[in-house]
Amino acid sequence: MEKRIITVSREFGSGGRSVGKALAKRLGWKYYDKELVKAVAEKTGFDPRFIEERGEFSVGKSLLSYALAGQGMPGVMNGMSASDFLWCMQREVILKLAEEGGCVIVGRCADYILRERKDVFNVFVHAPMAYRADRIVRLYGESERSPEQRLQDKDKKRRVNYKHYTGRDWGVSQNYHLSLDSADIGVDHCADVILYAMGLDPAKLPMPEGEKEHN
Amino acid sequence: MEKRIITVSREFGSGGRSVGKALAKRLGWKYYDKELVKAVAEKTGFDPRFIEERGEFSVGKSLLSYALAGQGMPGVMNGMSASDFLWCMQREVILKLAEEGGCVIVGRCADYILRERKDVFNVFVHAPMAYRADRIVRLYGESERSPEQRLQDKDKKRRVNYKHYTGRDWGVSQNYHLSLDSADIGVDHCADVILYAMGLDPAKLPMPEGEKEHN
Repeated sequence: MEKRIITVSREFGSGGRSVGKALAKRLGWKYYDKELVKAVAEKTGFDPRFIEERGEFSVGKSLLSYALAGQGMPGVMNGMSASDFLWCMQREVILKLAEEGGCVIVGRCADYILRERKDVFNVFVHAPMAYRADRIVRLYGESERSPEQRLQDKDKKRRVNYKHYTGRDWGVSQNYHLSLDSADIGVDHCADVILYAMGLDPAKLPMPEGEKEHN
Repeated sequence: MEKRIITVSREFGSGGRSVGKALAKRLGWKYYDKELVKAVAEKTGFDPRFIEERGEFSVGKSLLSYALAGQGMPGVMNGMSASDFLWCMQREVILKLAEEGGCVIVGRCADYILRERKDVFNVFVHAPMAYRADRIVRLYGESERSPEQRLQDKDKKRRVNYKHYTGRDWGVSQNYHLSLDSADIGVDHCADVILYAMGLDPAKLPMPEGEKEHN
């Protein structure tokens, strides 16, 4: 069946977001990552910064979630934690976007949320620790914690969040149509390989003029 | 670094062996699967049928392993179970074959055994249960047990064996450069995608005349 949606799951620092952006530009599809956050913010009234932070790492009740629950939406939230409420809103937005098709969705358990659809191509981008450590320092700079600690922390949060909301193990090959090591294959070439695996000709889908990938 | 070896790990019934054979033919490389069994048999004096059965599912001591241990090689086997002895021999053969390069190795934890080499491209081929069930009945016929039971049994044995000898989880994306869902991508197209991901042009590497893939 022809694919109308690509979901990109990725290890932090692997370049998965760059791959997702390149796919959207080359296919002329919409790209949802931070854009998804905006849509959920409009729907829920939550602060976009809160959604961005908690949308991917949203397990458990935080003090903040209690504070928010007390600030005006107890009826709407129906006794759910802010995290669970956010998950439901995000799920609803993703299902709606998928109906429209022609989009690339990065993160947010979209592979799981859209698992019943046959027109979705699910990819997972990963890379060895050393490659990712080097890459995040280059892109985001140094911080107090070592890049390895930052990576382990982010990966763990994604793994726990994915398990909590999907019951599945994050990064297991069987959950994706294609999983790629971006360090070996190259971040730029990953987008080509995904298009090719989907039965498309990457040579006929060049990056639009003036666009540059953010590696 | 240029790749000189491809290892193919696969779920039973996913077509991984067909993918491996196609890669070897198209690259003009050697293909090792049963051929590896022959080499180990010559080295050890074990019955090839025993190696084939136990080479991939070799955890624990069986009555047979004790029987073999008592039949002439206690010195050579050095107190090891027949399974562990076989693992060591198989490992030695795989390391030697890799030195020669230009080969595709299917199964046998070759991805782990060759993990220190930079010239190896590791792939994992998987597919949903329903696709594999249909495929094994078509290829190998019916048996007393349901195809789903046969698949679960084989997968479990491979998973346990891989964990026992490598300490790693079988089928986890991060262990491979590329993991592919053969049901979605197509068994034939999987070989193209692997070649393409390795930076080669599949169109310039056609299947030799008269060769047919065994799907």
